Amino acid sequence: MNALTSLADIVGSRHLIEAEALRERPQDFWNNVPTRALALVRPASVEEVSAVLAWCNRNGSPVVPEGGRTNLIQGTAASPEAVLLSTERLNQFDAPDLGAMTVQAGSGVVLQALQESCHAAGLRFGLDFGARGSATLGGALSTNAGGFQALRYGVARDQVRGLEVVLADGTVLSHLTPYAKDNTGYDLKHLFIGSEGTLGVITRAILRLHPAPVTANTALLSFTDFDAVTRTLSRLRRDLQGTLSSFEIMWREFFEFNVDALCGGRSPLSESCPFYVLCEAEGFAPDMDDARFEAVIMQALDAGDVKDAVIAQSARQRDELWRIREDFEAEQELFRVMIDFDISLPLSAMDAFSREVDEALNTHIPEFLGLHILGHLGDGNLHVTTGLPTPERSDDLKALVYGLIAKHGGSISAEHGIGLNKRDYLGYSRSPEEIATMRLLKKALDPKNTLNPGKILQ
Amino acid sequence: MNALTSLADIVGSRHLIEAEALRERPQDFWNNVPTRALALVRPASVEEVSAVLAWCNRNGSPVVPEGGRTNLIQGTAASPEAVLLSTERLNQFDAPDLGAMTVQAGSGVVLQALQESCHAAGLRFGLDFGARGSATLGGALSTNAGGFQALRYGVARDQVRGLEVVLADGTVLSHLTPYAKDNTGYDLKHLFIGSEGTLGVITRAILRLHPAPVTANTALLSFTDFDAVTRTLSRLRRDLQGTLSSFEIMWREFFEFNVDALCGGRSPLSESCPFYVLCEAEGFAPDMDDARFEAVIMQALDAGDVKDAVIAQSARQRDELWRIREDFEAEQELFRVMIDFDISLPLSAMDAFSREVDEALNTHIPEFLGLHILGHLGDGNLHVTTGLPTPERSDDLKALVYGLIAKHGGSISAEHGIGLNKRDYLGYSRSPEEIATMRLLKKALDPKNTLNPGKILQ
Ligand SMILES: Cc1cc2nc3c(=O)[nH]c(=O)nc-3n(C[C@H](O)[C@H](O)[C@H](O)COP(=O)(O)OP(=O)(O)OC[C@H]3O[C@@H](n4cnc5c(N)ncnc54)[C@H](O)[C@@H]3O)c2cc1C
Ligand SMILES: Cc1cc2nc3c(=O)[nH]c(=O)nc-3n(C[C@H](O)[C@H](O)[C@H](O)COP(=O)(O)OP(=O)(O)OC[C@H]3O[C@@H](n4cnc5c(N)ncnc54)[C@H](O)[C@@H]3O)c2cc1C
Repeated sequence: MNALTSLADIVGSRHLIEAEALRERPQDFWNNVPTRALALVRPASVEEVSAVLAWCNRNGSPVVPEGGRTNLIQGTAASPEAVLLSTERLNQFDAPDLGAMTVQAGSGVVLQALQESCHAAGLRFGLDFGARGSATLGGALSTNAGGFQALRYGVARDQVRGLEVVLADGTVLSHLTPYAKDNTGYDLKHLFIGSEGTLGVITRAILRLHPAPVTANTALLSFTDFDAVTRTLSRLRRDLQGTLSSFEIMWREFFEFNVDALCGGRSPLSESCPFYVLCEAEGFAPDMDDARFEAVIMQALDAGDVKDAVIAQSARQRDELWRIREDFEAEQELFRVMIDFDISLPLSAMDAFSREVDEALNTHIPEFLGLHILGHLGDGNLHVTTGLPTPERSDDLKALVYGLIAKHGGSISAEHGIGLNKRDYLGYSRSPEEIATMRLLKKALDPKNTLNPGKILQ
Repeated sequence: MNALTSLADIVGSRHLIEAEALRERPQDFWNNVPTRALALVRPASVEEVSAVLAWCNRNGSPVVPEGGRTNLIQGTAASPEAVLLSTERLNQFDAPDLGAMTVQAGSGVVLQALQESCHAAGLRFGLDFGARGSATLGGALSTNAGGFQALRYGVARDQVRGLEVVLADGTVLSHLTPYAKDNTGYDLKHLFIGSEGTLGVITRAILRLHPAPVTANTALLSFTDFDAVTRTLSRLRRDLQGTLSSFEIMWREFFEFNVDALCGGRSPLSESCPFYVLCEAEGFAPDMDDARFEAVIMQALDAGDVKDAVIAQSARQRDELWRIREDFEAEQELFRVMIDFDISLPLSAMDAFSREVDEALNTHIPEFLGLHILGHLGDGNLHVTTGLPTPERSDDLKALVYGLIAKHGGSISAEHGIGLNKRDYLGYSRSPEEIATMRLLKKALDPKNTLNPGKILQ
């Protein structure tokens, strides 16, 4: 039987989209090229996912899972003979369990829908990032996404209690357990989380939830040296008693660029400083959280670590402060051929790294258009962005920066994953032995290379 | 060359102990039988561990890693031809990094030494249990230990940032990264954590730390129904703002038994109730934590969920309350042939499960000597203990209880692991497909079955 008929038999012909029609939609959120694939199928149950995979595995068709297609790594790019497996219809989710503080959801649920359902129950799902309106739970788990709240709640991996996954040959591994402790042999779920659809298709998960905070306090701080920034991070972690939810560092060049672009050059703080931090605490005690936040910031000022500080006095002021951190429109214009890095570094290496990148660019790629560094300091995660007038020297620039990341024992991908885009650079962060072990696992679990072939590993 | 000479060449003859001498020490903390093995080696570095494993793998000698030998699963039991690999000399650790709030340590470090070093720096290592004076970091990670603080800080797995592991053939996988975000391909560390030394020998780790709390408040609560207990858990999680560190449930039979044994029958609370909870919050604000704790407990009383409550007014009273939860001497006498279960269950199944176990024992094993249930409610983790006058019907009793755990989707091992002791029961919690996948991974990573053979999987 022909592939399209067989697959339509499994998912129903309404839920099979053929190559022609697929070419009318872009490959993903970032790459405006037509989607290539033999067909896209939209299974509605774990049984249908299993049947699709079993058929494809038997017949040598590659399968590329896709969720909201918001990934930044060409994770859902397909070859013309591949079958795209969309989780769109695996989007059911239960009401949160208030006692256990967990929720069960299909992998196709859109993040925002899940967040809102939890919020309505007084609970918070501890994962949030800009793509919340399109990204799916399955995509977030498969890329082990990070985002704004990782300092407090951890990354996607940390939200998972139980997982249901379908292997390349259609075998269903279902371990939908809601509890926090389970030492019954190997913990299989962690193999699939963050493996970008190369080892299995995630169909369902049980997630832990947290009490939803009811207060928020935000401040912008400035610093004259980097050590004072890390000391202040430790201080706030302790004195804000676990309510600290963001600690976003910005190097001067980025901060002042956005202040110019967004506030007409009027900085919320008086003097120019090499480092700025936007921090936020979210608590549960409306009667005392404001006062405590102010007191803790005052102590940091008195200690001499914080040079200057402004505390947002209204929701509007809070939004204004966040805009300096989050708005990238002006930057996108400035950098023309934009090259950005999503990296982790040991805290102790960050200051030196930032100087070395600046120096190296000035020496070797003097045409670079500026260097913007910012990030989630508590997670060791920096976003480094620069630009070139024309694309020719992009690869030189990448090799230069990746080399410095490797030198400091950093990660070339903190949040976004590897996919196709960073595959050639994996060796900057992982040893030949580690990469060989990854290949061994891929080979063991997917010997016919059915699932998302060519992603992460060649 | 002969095995003993070759191994002595690697570790030095002072650090090789031969079969004869080994027979003078017990196999482990719980089994007072002589240690069996060809020899024990004490490598002092990752290079020596690698050389030992490479030699043994080449020559077909099984290797059994051991730390403090405090596990409860016969995890370090060896065959007469096996080589025991002790991590005793891999016990170096750095001073904690105050900014990054991490610490690097060898796998042989004793838990308590690590805890104390962190504490002296104002930080807390989030893992603690009774065996702290003997158990090692490597043993805790290999069994993914839980313990008293899991509600707040998670289990052993959750403490790990970076890991160094040696595979069966001597390959070293070193990924000693201190940061929280790292999505560079498969997350290999999670495969080794909790795999009880069957996939690799852990030699070193980078661990996350937390600010050390400075206040503690403890209360004993009583409840007339189970739903009120779970509601109160949610309330305390929210209103104590993340400072809740213990929420230990005790069923009446256990509670009253220990009150009789320890307090001459004088309960700290007035009426007899079906459920009791010992809860504790540890905070950072000496000026307000006591008052807040009292207020939150009062609200739970006013809401009608908590029937009665007593708050410890002194360190002595706190110890007295904890003793009711922690003392097992009288129980050990009562139960003669003691049979205990360390399980997880969905919160929603706990109440029914406890009744069904009681009923089933009464019906099928009427000679049972009582049923003590207690546990870490927030983790879904119960300890269920019973006893028989004589050992004959132990297996029947186990099958009965494991059957009820399986019926409710529970875990037959919440904290302690599988080892030899629970190997035959693994199928009560994991599906044939999951177990087959575990075998596949074992085969891929250790094709010659060198590492801790027969543990977890036959
Ligand atoms: C505006 C914007 C902001 C962003 N901010 C962040 C951020 O702060 N932090 C961050 O980490 N990321 C961020 N991202 C990246 C992206 O949103 C995440 O990677 C997201 O998790 C992808 O989800 P998705 O449903 O779109 O997955 P897709 O893009 O569809 O797929 C991602 C990968 O997972 C695989 N996959 C998808 N579903 C499954 C499944 N069910 N089973 C197995 N494999 C599957 C795909 O094959 C692909 O390799 C951002 C993206 C945008 C557009
Ligand atoms: C009084 C007491 C209370 C306890 N309370 C708890 C509790 O509350 N929660 C809990 O979870 N456990 C508890 N335990 C069980 C035990 O302490 C833990 O399992 C502990 O983590 C074992 O550490 P260890 O160093 O003694 O390891 P060992 O017993 O020596 O070894 C445990 C397993 O890990 C393997 N192993 C050891 N080191 C390594 C290594 N470096 N690399 C690879 N594999 C290795 C061994 O082969 C074995 O399979 C308790 C034990 C006692 C005696």
